[in-house]
Amino acid sequence: MNGASTHNKVDKIWYNCRVVTLANAAEPLAMSDDAAIAMRDGRIVAIAPTEHVLAAYKAERCIDLQGRLVTPGLIDCHTHLVYAGNRAHEFELRLAGADYADIAKAGGGIASTLAATRAASADELLQQSLPRLDRLLAEGVTTVEVKSGYGQNLASELKQLAVARELTSHRLVNIAPTLLAAHVVPPEYQGNPDGYVVFVCDELIPAAVAAGHIDAIDGFCEHIAFTPEQIDKIFHTAQQHQIPVKLHAAQLSNDGGVQVASQYQALSADHLEYADEAAVAAMANSGTVAVLLPGAFYCLREQQPPPVELLRQYQVPMAVATDANPGTSPLTSPQLAMHFACTLFGLTVAEAFSGMTINAAKALGKAAEIGSLEVGKYCDLAIWDAERPAEIIYQMGFNPLYLRVWRGHEST
Amino acid sequence: MNGASTHNKVDKIWYNCRVVTLANAAEPLAMSDDAAIAMRDGRIVAIAPTEHVLAAYKAERCIDLQGRLVTPGLIDCHTHLVYAGNRAHEFELRLAGADYADIAKAGGGIASTLAATRAASADELLQQSLPRLDRLLAEGVTTVEVKSGYGQNLASELKQLAVARELTSHRLVNIAPTLLAAHVVPPEYQGNPDGYVVFVCDELIPAAVAAGHIDAIDGFCEHIAFTPEQIDKIFHTAQQHQIPVKLHAAQLSNDGGVQVASQYQALSADHLEYADEAAVAAMANSGTVAVLLPGAFYCLREQQPPPVELLRQYQVPMAVATDANPGTSPLTSPQLAMHFACTLFGLTVAEAFSGMTINAAKALGKAAEIGSLEVGKYCDLAIWDAERPAEIIYQMGFNPLYLRVWRGHEST
Ligand SMILES: [Zn+2]
Ligand SMILES: [Zn+2]
Repeated sequence: MNGASTHNKVDKIWYNCRVVTLANAAEPLAMSDDAAIAMRDGRIVAIAPTEHVLAAYKAERCIDLQGRLVTPGLIDCHTHLVYAGNRAHEFELRLAGADYADIAKAGGGIASTLAATRAASADELLQQSLPRLDRLLAEGVTTVEVKSGYGQNLASELKQLAVARELTSHRLVNIAPTLLAAHVVPPEYQGNPDGYVVFVCDELIPAAVAAGHIDAIDGFCEHIAFTPEQIDKIFHTAQQHQIPVKLHAAQLSNDGGVQVASQYQALSADHLEYADEAAVAAMANSGTVAVLLPGAFYCLREQQPPPVELLRQYQVPMAVATDANPGTSPLTSPQLAMHFACTLFGLTVAEAFSGMTINAAKALGKAAEIGSLEVGKYCDLAIWDAERPAEIIYQMGFNPLYLRVWRGHEST
Repeated sequence: MNGASTHNKVDKIWYNCRVVTLANAAEPLAMSDDAAIAMRDGRIVAIAPTEHVLAAYKAERCIDLQGRLVTPGLIDCHTHLVYAGNRAHEFELRLAGADYADIAKAGGGIASTLAATRAASADELLQQSLPRLDRLLAEGVTTVEVKSGYGQNLASELKQLAVARELTSHRLVNIAPTLLAAHVVPPEYQGNPDGYVVFVCDELIPAAVAAGHIDAIDGFCEHIAFTPEQIDKIFHTAQQHQIPVKLHAAQLSNDGGVQVASQYQALSADHLEYADEAAVAAMANSGTVAVLLPGAFYCLREQQPPPVELLRQYQVPMAVATDANPGTSPLTSPQLAMHFACTLFGLTVAEAFSGMTINAAKALGKAAEIGSLEVGKYCDLAIWDAERPAEIIYQMGFNPLYLRVWRGHEST
């Protein structure tokens, strides 16, 4: 009956929507009204005016979106989502005036998360992590990076990574697992961080690579964590295994970590509050994305924001992420992460929204597949009861998501 | 069959729960494990160990809460929830560098909310306000104060107040309507704020009182709004009508507004960033509650927090509220309001939680009926999948509410 040839058969068409594709860096929030998106086998086949798409393609299902806003599914490119326990009591004690020693004595701090995560079974870890993942998905997230780093021994790091991958068996989402090899010096290596780095390079990285897919290797470069020299050793090993790197860098001080990351063409350098112009120039040179984590900045009551103006000048792409973790950023709201980025760091709405879509995809090395709505990319959509992306960010505690689409599958 | 006499019949018993009553000011978050609550006709009849309650009372329904945490339903004692339109575009323009004049030219600012609210029908106002109310309820709120103030003429103020009352026909919630008589000088009185105050005293207040129940009269005392002298006139009129008062005071400057409020035994003085010791002493004298609004503080990037230490010294009760409004605090998350109060103002968890329960009840003059779990008070409960109140506050974007109970009725 329909004149379209068989190669114009598609699985679904969403029509009568306002589309923000994020495909044009010069005008990231450009809106097309009365647009339609055709999908086949989980990928975008066409984005065009509704009448053109309906004339050119034949779909099993055509969905009238009644003018709603469609954006790329959100991407949270920096999380520590898989952990056991919580640190609410530590939060309470600190506000009541407890100092670091009191909290350590009460079993708090990152050591407590390390202990709880090591002690948890894989299934316990999964059950505790799924509700947090669900919060991200409820706000339109379709891809989540998940770091290990609360094991810091062979069995527990592999367990965390396996649970991160296992999340995709339970939810319609893409997970990018990262081996956060050097997060904290574990109790077994107290006073011997170099010994721990040898373990990371000689045992942990090879085992994580052998155990299956890890997308990247990460570290925490800071005076309270690992030195640039130690990170360099780890990144050298990563390079030998052909695994891309990223780094927690310049969060509390400017110690040269960003430059080490840039030397290894890191996918991203994350936090960056204390990055100076030399660091930003190095990132521009190496094509490293700046991942801004305003949730941690807010929770730690930091005063120095990252060098946003320099990042603009050097055209370093800025991503924004929740940093979801039990200590410094117990944040599972992408909307609030963007609100923090706008309010605390001065990002524009376009920058914040790019930061959780196209630039987050770049930070994961996946911009060819996700992050914008373009023919050939995966059909990961967030559909909103809103007229413009600013409405998604501007309200705090109000979620205008209408529907989430992951690789063409609808899900709330 | 049961030996209990008929007068020990109750409607419902919730048992096997951990109860935080907020009834003891010296230890507000004291927890009782394995407790039960008996309810009859919407009020609490007993709170005691489960075995005692089950032995002494006979209920139609007994609900096993499996160890969950029960607290008083939350009270949001300062909101501007009923309005039309949104100011997302203004948020976007400001972040992109627009100044006040640009935004006014683009139709932004409070004038835009005034115009949209005036133009909306009562039903449109209701339909736009219900989703915001639902967000509060989803986090365990059982009582909401709602201000007018986006009409500033007779018909529109009465419409806003009627819609505020109408919310209770659609949801299980108690609404406390406040006539925010002097919020902004409306266009009809530009350059003539004294003329507007005469209108408020001679026409608006009498009409609002005649139209039905208003719980309080409010004003905005600030150099960009009304002077202490103008507020004094309005409060004098309120007093003649025997309506309690409250005041937006000392948000941007210390202009004596708090003292005017105290002279009229105001229920609360709200914002208070610039309140000094004399102001705090006046509040202590008049029994005026300090309502802290950290959402506005955060959105406006204010630098001077309210004088929390002085409020503690003078034992002025501190409440915390969302200030839900389209301009300076588009916040409909009580949890986040408490997180902001802790992180930005240094409140303890006990202070923040008291601030949205018992002290919020005091700020509404309703502490005899709500705000804590005590025999004789309304059975307004928030039931949480959490072990302690700190867990409710500490996570951002994660809602552990299990069930909300309003006057004995269960609702999510
Ligand atoms: Zn991190
Ligand atoms: Zn207000």
